[in-house]
Amino acid sequence: MGGDLAPDEIVRGAAEASLSLGAEIILVGDAAVLGRILPQLRHDGARVRVHHAPARVEMDEKPAEALAAKPDASIAVAADLVARGDGDALVSAGNTGASVLACARRWKLLPGVRRSALAAVYPTELRRGDKDDPFSLILDVGATIDASAEDLVTFAVMGSAYAKVVSKNRRPRVALLSNGAEAGKGPAAVVTAHELLLATTELNFIGNVEGLDIPRGFADVIVCNGFVGNVVLKMLEGVSETVVRLARYAHKERLAWRLGLFALSSAIDQLKQITDWQQYGGAPLLGFEHLFIKAHGRSNAHAITNAIKVANKALAGNLCGTIARTMAELDERRRLAAPVAPTP
Amino acid sequence: MGGDLAPDEIVRGAAEASLSLGAEIILVGDAAVLGRILPQLRHDGARVRVHHAPARVEMDEKPAEALAAKPDASIAVAADLVARGDGDALVSAGNTGASVLACARRWKLLPGVRRSALAAVYPTELRRGDKDDPFSLILDVGATIDASAEDLVTFAVMGSAYAKVVSKNRRPRVALLSNGAEAGKGPAAVVTAHELLLATTELNFIGNVEGLDIPRGFADVIVCNGFVGNVVLKMLEGVSETVVRLARYAHKERLAWRLGLFALSSAIDQLKQITDWQQYGGAPLLGFEHLFIKAHGRSNAHAITNAIKVANKALAGNLCGTIARTMAELDERRRLAAPVAPTP
Repeated sequence: MGGDLAPDEIVRGAAEASLSLGAEIILVGDAAVLGRILPQLRHDGARVRVHHAPARVEMDEKPAEALAAKPDASIAVAADLVARGDGDALVSAGNTGASVLACARRWKLLPGVRRSALAAVYPTELRRGDKDDPFSLILDVGATIDASAEDLVTFAVMGSAYAKVVSKNRRPRVALLSNGAEAGKGPAAVVTAHELLLATTELNFIGNVEGLDIPRGFADVIVCNGFVGNVVLKMLEGVSETVVRLARYAHKERLAWRLGLFALSSAIDQLKQITDWQQYGGAPLLGFEHLFIKAHGRSNAHAITNAIKVANKALAGNLCGTIARTMAELDERRRLAAPVAPTP
Repeated sequence: MGGDLAPDEIVRGAAEASLSLGAEIILVGDAAVLGRILPQLRHDGARVRVHHAPARVEMDEKPAEALAAKPDASIAVAADLVARGDGDALVSAGNTGASVLACARRWKLLPGVRRSALAAVYPTELRRGDKDDPFSLILDVGATIDASAEDLVTFAVMGSAYAKVVSKNRRPRVALLSNGAEAGKGPAAVVTAHELLLATTELNFIGNVEGLDIPRGFADVIVCNGFVGNVVLKMLEGVSETVVRLARYAHKERLAWRLGLFALSSAIDQLKQITDWQQYGGAPLLGFEHLFIKAHGRSNAHAITNAIKVANKALAGNLCGTIARTMAELDERRRLAAPVAPTP
């Protein structure tokens, strides 16, 4: 029921996924509404069913208040279904804050994970992995605000696992976002995380990257706290808008530039399509025993099918299990490396 | 002696400033070298003199190590001259870290200021002030890493004063960078700073802005800690590069887009000029009793003349005095607002 084009485009995307992906889908929401839309669409009846939830969280509602006022909102009911094993993963294009909160309240964190992270993919020039994937992953982009050094290491493990399992990148290059490439640069949490990551042989840590390096794509996974990640992601989302605005400034500034702006305008429309990377799947919420894929609020049917495809891939590759295993390995290595207490 | 085009272009810019601005300039550096360049240029001999400094910090040297090894480096000698009143302001295109450190070690912070901030200007679509200035100011962009709520308020006061004095903007709109527009969004320091700024009638505080809002220019002054500011600034600096990279991605992706890229390329060169805003003056270091203008490392003569012009304007408008006065007013108001201790 969530998303700018819900419920029509969401149901359409799910119907398509039941056919092309063979995914089994539970549509959670107003049964009367969903029951009207679904029969009009080509779908695999054995693979799609409706689970009634009488309420819904609107896109602009405050997450905590909305969930308190509507315990039977579709996102809450859906997160419950997954928590008790009736579903394997959750996909939603609705209110991001409410979705993350609904999951956080019902799902258990994986052993060793202290804080979940919302990851986002964005296109870069460099390609990577078996599928020449042009996307880099950045996390956390806003599941929480702050992150300790240990949290940043956990984010690195989770992002790396996602790149391996979903992007089929065998040895993802992981970097820390900082204000300089040198090891000593950044706030205390980043400096300590850098030291910890250098010792983490389970990961392919390439060091610090700066703001300028983000779109370059040298790193497959960029790790930062949720506050910085959110600012960065919103700047990335606005890159084509930024260009239009700067071009308008040029426009006023010099006659000759108007021609450039005219030439630019169609190219910018195309750039907008590439930079609107949310269409290529969605943002995974990582760190819980279950997976949540947050599709963009503007998702159409195609974007929803893609988000379901990503969830499918993550399940097939046992993403959550991979994260848990790596966290256990890290813990074991640290335990072994810890100095033995002297006999009293 | 600092900057990619030093010393020739620096001396050229200073010579020009002696004529067009009537500024009095002390060129600090290797007297033999400077003494060879200056006579070849048209300049006002009564307004330019050379002060010898035998050493120089290179652009890629580590700040603390370089200053320790070369106590008579030009930037150290120049900061000394200003500290003892032989100069009113300092301009350099050299190593940013070394410049900031040289000032911080020799100059006193203004009363009430706990932490200095390096500010940067960037072009936006919106114009502002008496001169239709297209630039917004963002600070701190890296003088220090962290900032408390009180530091963020100080940055707001300093940025606002700069916009008033240098950009002739009578009532600069000041905003806090956060991960949401609402008052409660962001790390603790940002949330508390938001509350403090709402109560600060000396400033025109417009609330929080997000990453997407930065290039829009709704705010004339954007306040954040030095870590986030540095990441943002480097992303802004790279906006044209980002577009080129995304365009290259498009290029590979679809034949029809190649035409767009071709059309784009000349426009991008023009955009590069606008986004290279460092040519429009420089980054002021704010919070000390004296002013330092950090010109871009790539500064040519024109950029240096502009940086001297900005320093001149700031001195004429008594920027440091304005900051000190506002900080004192804030302190006085808080003192008055503090609850009176009950009689025992």
